[in-house]
Amino acid sequence: MVKGKFEYRVRYADTDQAGIVYYGNYAKFYEIGRTEFIREYGMTYKELEDMGIIMPVVSMNVKYIKPVLYDELISIETSVEKITGARAVFHSDIFNSDGELVNSADVTLTFIDRKTRRLVRAPEELTRVIDVNMKDN
Amino acid sequence: MVKGKFEYRVRYADTDQAGIVYYGNYAKFYEIGRTEFIREYGMTYKELEDMGIIMPVVSMNVKYIKPVLYDELISIETSVEKITGARAVFHSDIFNSDGELVNSADVTLTFIDRKTRRLVRAPEELTRVIDVNMKDN
Amino acid sequence: MVKGKFEYRVRYADTDQAGIVYYGNYAKFYEIGRTEFIREYGMTYKELEDMGIIMPVVSMNVKYIKPVLYDELISIETSVEKITGARAVFHSDIFNSDGELVNSADVTLTFIDRKTRRLVRAPEELTRVIDVNMKDN
Amino acid sequence: MVKGKFEYRVRYADTDQAGIVYYGNYAKFYEIGRTEFIREYGMTYKELEDMGIIMPVVSMNVKYIKPVLYDELISIETSVEKITGARAVFHSDIFNSDGELVNSADVTLTFIDRKTRRLVRAPEELTRVIDVNMKDN
Repeated sequence: MVKGKFEYRVRYADTDQAGIVYYGNYAKFYEIGRTEFIREYGMTYKELEDMGIIMPVVSMNVKYIKPVLYDELISIETSVEKITGARAVFHSDIFNSDGELVNSADVTLTFIDRKTRRLVRAPEELTRVIDVNMKDN
Repeated sequence: MVKGKFEYRVRYADTDQAGIVYYGNYAKFYEIGRTEFIREYGMTYKELEDMGIIMPVVSMNVKYIKPVLYDELISIETSVEKITGARAVFHSDIFNSDGELVNSADVTLTFIDRKTRRLVRAPEELTRVIDVNMKDN
Repeated sequence: MVKGKFEYRVRYADTDQAGIVYYGNYAKFYEIGRTEFIREYGMTYKELEDMGIIMPVVSMNVKYIKPVLYDELISIETSVEKITGARAVFHSDIFNSDGELVNSADVTLTFIDRKTRRLVRAPEELTRVIDVNMKDN
Repeated sequence: MVKGKFEYRVRYADTDQAGIVYYGNYAKFYEIGRTEFIREYGMTYKELEDMGIIMPVVSMNVKYIKPVLYDELISIETSVEKITGARAVFHSDIFNSDGELVNSADVTLTFIDRKTRRLVRAPEELTRVIDVNMKDN
């Protein structure tokens, strides 16, 4: 499977008064994971936008396994579960510095034409790099 | 079913460059819904914490149905799906000012003893008010 | 002086692991204050944007006087210090539920034409309502 | 002067609907700058906390010079203006990928004993590393 890996240092801004990362802030971690995953395979989300495509999230399922603490260096591992038509499912696994799986999520996004606001197929530029890499692995 | 309703005005801080509420910011809306729901039924989350109980989120499932825009006055409707043992499932439906359902989520929390970090049963003070109100409705 | 007052309930999302509101989250409170201040005087920031005007912040000076805690109901008091040409200075005082001043800030914004990205004079629709109210007070 | 430099990639989560970084999100950038600055000189903010010291912000002055856009790789340069008694002033300059200064801020923090909530002198462990490095430069 095609995977991307990105390290992130937890900031004070990410925590809440329970002394752990606020449950709403993980979505940003998945965003970072997706973006860096795509960049690694030769494209940027910004380029997609410049092509007139935006990718709104349509669903998200999260499992909070272990709390993540301030100043931890977490590892965000991202993979594409599938890209079918106008829809892409990204999977994120987050590991703490001890290598323990602390959080796991599926985020489904759609490809939308910015002007018409209609669903469009995933751009070939994106599926091609992912397909090529999928075969390689 | 016991329901709580709370209105929230979308701020610039909630939006992203796609011109809609950032998908990670809905978690805050569910938090507001849960907190105001509990308050309405005679308790505060702060009181739970003062009793030595914290409620970390263990899972969250979200459906993003329609984008929410800047300055919209949304309505957050919250209900308790179930409280069983050490676990509570809250359901949130978010409506825009046209009354359309724009977002829907289930958030599961556990009851944890702050000191021992162990699971504890939902405090009677909380289940009682919810039970009483469930019968009333 | 023209003043607006708006109450805000501090959320878990606003706090950090020091158990207080994260210092970066006050900017959102000033935004809420400004927005509701303008709304109270008959205009919305959204209307300004629909007129093709955006108001980027050019400077901000903040004094953190007392920490603000989770679930506190704070009061955000906003006034316009001055509107001169293309520039408006808003002042915000935040009070806790005991009526103590806990935070104080000056935020300076400019009026920019969205298309040309050039400075423009504050729209009359805005200065008029503020002037009228200034005389009344 | 002792300086720390840290690169940060702007995320969707950082932007607002004006298509630029939300003015409230820069505080997080200064936090990142301070934390990495201290780490570079041999200490972590977490160690300070473990020593029983917290550092609440008492004032912040920000100049927003140029907007920062999505996906820009900004450079956060941090220096200590002075540490006197219980007070430290950090200065942050943020540069975009063209090397232009886009944002500039002074953030003043105090050293507080976590238990007594009283001001304490900056711990020697911190001032020493900064002093040594100041002489070196």
